[in-house]
Amino acid sequence: MKITGTFIDEISHDIPHQNWGRKEWAQDFDHMKAIGIDTVIIIRCGYGRFITYPSKYLQENYGCYRPSEDLVELFLDLAAERNMKLFFGLYDSGHYWQTGDLHHEIESNKYVIDEVWSTYGHKKSFGGWYISTEISRKTKGAIEAFSTLGKQCKDMSGGLPTLISPWVDGKKAVMASSSSLSKEDAVSLETHQREWDEIFDGIKDAVDIVAFQDGHLDYDELADFLQVNKELADKYGMTSWTNAESFDRDMPIKFLPIKFDKLRLKLEAAAKAGVDKAITFEFSHFMSPQSSYVQAHHLYNRYNEYMNRLKKG
Amino acid sequence: MKITGTFIDEISHDIPHQNWGRKEWAQDFDHMKAIGIDTVIIIRCGYGRFITYPSKYLQENYGCYRPSEDLVELFLDLAAERNMKLFFGLYDSGHYWQTGDLHHEIESNKYVIDEVWSTYGHKKSFGGWYISTEISRKTKGAIEAFSTLGKQCKDMSGGLPTLISPWVDGKKAVMASSSSLSKEDAVSLETHQREWDEIFDGIKDAVDIVAFQDGHLDYDELADFLQVNKELADKYGMTSWTNAESFDRDMPIKFLPIKFDKLRLKLEAAAKAGVDKAITFEFSHFMSPQSSYVQAHHLYNRYNEYMNRLKKG
Amino acid sequence: MKITGTFIDEISHDIPHQNWGRKEWAQDFDHMKAIGIDTVIIIRCGYGRFITYPSKYLQENYGCYRPSEDLVELFLDLAAERNMKLFFGLYDSGHYWQTGDLHHEIESNKYVIDEVWSTYGHKKSFGGWYISTEISRKTKGAIEAFSTLGKQCKDMSGGLPTLISPWVDGKKAVMASSSSLSKEDAVSLETHQREWDEIFDGIKDAVDIVAFQDGHLDYDELADFLQVNKELADKYGMTSWTNAESFDRDMPIKFLPIKFDKLRLKLEAAAKAGVDKAITFEFSHFMSPQSSYVQAHHLYNRYNEYMNRLKKG
Repeated sequence: MKITGTFIDEISHDIPHQNWGRKEWAQDFDHMKAIGIDTVIIIRCGYGRFITYPSKYLQENYGCYRPSEDLVELFLDLAAERNMKLFFGLYDSGHYWQTGDLHHEIESNKYVIDEVWSTYGHKKSFGGWYISTEISRKTKGAIEAFSTLGKQCKDMSGGLPTLISPWVDGKKAVMASSSSLSKEDAVSLETHQREWDEIFDGIKDAVDIVAFQDGHLDYDELADFLQVNKELADKYGMTSWTNAESFDRDMPIKFLPIKFDKLRLKLEAAAKAGVDKAITFEFSHFMSPQSSYVQAHHLYNRYNEYMNRLKKG
Repeated sequence: MKITGTFIDEISHDIPHQNWGRKEWAQDFDHMKAIGIDTVIIIRCGYGRFITYPSKYLQENYGCYRPSEDLVELFLDLAAERNMKLFFGLYDSGHYWQTGDLHHEIESNKYVIDEVWSTYGHKKSFGGWYISTEISRKTKGAIEAFSTLGKQCKDMSGGLPTLISPWVDGKKAVMASSSSLSKEDAVSLETHQREWDEIFDGIKDAVDIVAFQDGHLDYDELADFLQVNKELADKYGMTSWTNAESFDRDMPIKFLPIKFDKLRLKLEAAAKAGVDKAITFEFSHFMSPQSSYVQAHHLYNRYNEYMNRLKKG
Repeated sequence: MKITGTFIDEISHDIPHQNWGRKEWAQDFDHMKAIGIDTVIIIRCGYGRFITYPSKYLQENYGCYRPSEDLVELFLDLAAERNMKLFFGLYDSGHYWQTGDLHHEIESNKYVIDEVWSTYGHKKSFGGWYISTEISRKTKGAIEAFSTLGKQCKDMSGGLPTLISPWVDGKKAVMASSSSLSKEDAVSLETHQREWDEIFDGIKDAVDIVAFQDGHLDYDELADFLQVNKELADKYGMTSWTNAESFDRDMPIKFLPIKFDKLRLKLEAAAKAGVDKAITFEFSHFMSPQSSYVQAHHLYNRYNEYMNRLKKG
């Protein structure tokens, strides 16, 4: 199972910024391309007051700060030059995380989708939308919201695909700010299946691709959950990807690159479940040969050795 | 707003040590000089049993360990060679943090000030004193202590300037050892103004420069607080600097270099408030091109690009 | 006091993986050799489902994952080529940490010891066994378990030495996942002596070497505890090493290389107590010139400068 897509973590929520400029980003797209990545996904175009492009709407209505660079344009151009597709991540106002109310996410993104499409929709690499508000089973009440956002994206762009990347409410589903690494009340496979059946049914017309995060489960539980996720996606005519997290959730230092064998186990489980594509969160911090984390340079080498071994059979 | 001063984090309290030797320190002073830094501030000459110079007094009276290097002499010489000024940070016995009692800080520093001035006072780079015990509004009872320490420094050295760097009791004023990143009971602008008016009044004869830490507030609150700080300093005939923190307080990993745009926003707010000088905590870990944190190398480049753009207008 | 041994942190429990391949490991053994290291200790051959060699027994009975590399063979060969000795660390099923029950550790290691000795016992660098389950005074009930494991190792291998590395229940003995760095109820020197006298008496026939971890005490307490440990070892005919931890337990970021002067103080305390040998946890992350942590490169240089100064007297 080859990784052929990656998130780009701008605006970062809990991973410290690398402070790359245009040169470093161009190099990193080269590194991505070199290992077969054809898809990049902007994790969110803004979070709270920080935004990735100089949105007139968000500066005026959400008090957002003018960014130094138009990263959306930069990433679209870098992707186009390398024949890659970019999924655009919607705005996250932060209100939902604090209040549980999705009103602001829907309201603001109505304008953001319009603004973004009219500004960047003509770029040949603009390949889809990423509905960035992360959900899990406890967000069931949000079905309508996600449906609304997905449909707006598709209607605006002549049906470009929409992607979500939910998390499984597994034993490692703890807050990044928490000092513990696991919890007791993890979801069972049966409950996961039942609840996501209901969610998929509610969003099937608005969401094309579901890429569950693969880091909240233990390694030996993953194959079964991936299997269920794939079956549910098939049942509702959706496409199943895996989001193979390349950072390590098992360490008290948050977050550094994952041990290669853990990534390998997760990719093997995804291959076994027959998912259509593997993407990762994310290449630039955790797998790039120019990452600020040197562990990532070695992960890149280990990953490439592994892929070469697979190729030779 | 150009950064023209930096703390030197020896003895470090919560930032892991880089283990630099004389060669690395000399190079770092070159890097500082290259971006226009003319002032270095030793954060503290000792903390608990660890000290930066072989103080006879502190080894005998506080059980301090003999350091491998005399860093005070080293830093003074490196500063002198580059025509920079050094502010000497007082000793922190650690007692205050544990007991709230400032007795040990006053008592020990009486001797430290004397010892340091007689040993290093002749160095041409010795430019002032930093009263290192960090205070905030809840330290009001400490007015007399700070006044005493500041006057001792000035009397000893023929009136060399004294500097403090208090924190604002804002939403991000949480302990480094805490797993949460913000708190609910942040101070309001009005209360901040009223309480610091009282503190400034009490220390105005002993403290010349106040450089509030700028990292405990949200970015959109900062301009107002900087404005108030500047007005209070003006009212009492003191000088107002800003301590533009170059590490990121918003991340679960403590502490890595700040995202450049956050630093830029803080410097813009300081410029707007008309503060006299920007210093940072601190260059060597978070902005240096030879930092152990590669993110710092890129921050250095982003900062320089920004300064060049400003210069060209 | 020279460091002449190091743990190898495979499988890592709380230190993020460096993702080294065969080339990096070979280089690191060269770096170790260059500073006089003659002994390497595999911290554990497996932890939970992750293992360092393709153990048929552990894959079949504990659901362990096949590792990409046989690291035990690799480390034994790298050690042999450099005339170093390797201590093999036993398997840690993880059950003890969760349940306090040592049954699984004893049961599984009976087979592991057999499997490992028949597979690797002929390697000329195979120099001893490390009983990896970490104990402290509260593990007194485990005397019989450690005795059993130690005897199995010795009987199997014609009396090769067995090593343990317990921790002192000092003020810094807190969980890695905890956000606090110290605790109130640290053990007193007297209680430590009394309790370990009892433990040593119970394991004296099965354990040859005791290397207490030196990081849970404050620097000024260490000399006394090392003295007691040495006396107890002498009393029961055991050998006393010190495990000089090269990571910093005093920082909110877990775990980065230690400040050199802290390591120096600990080595000086060990020399004073007359311990036979200093090992470290561990070279590759925290002292290696090719570590992912650049602070380690500088620690390596500071350590070498110090050793050169000592040599010249």
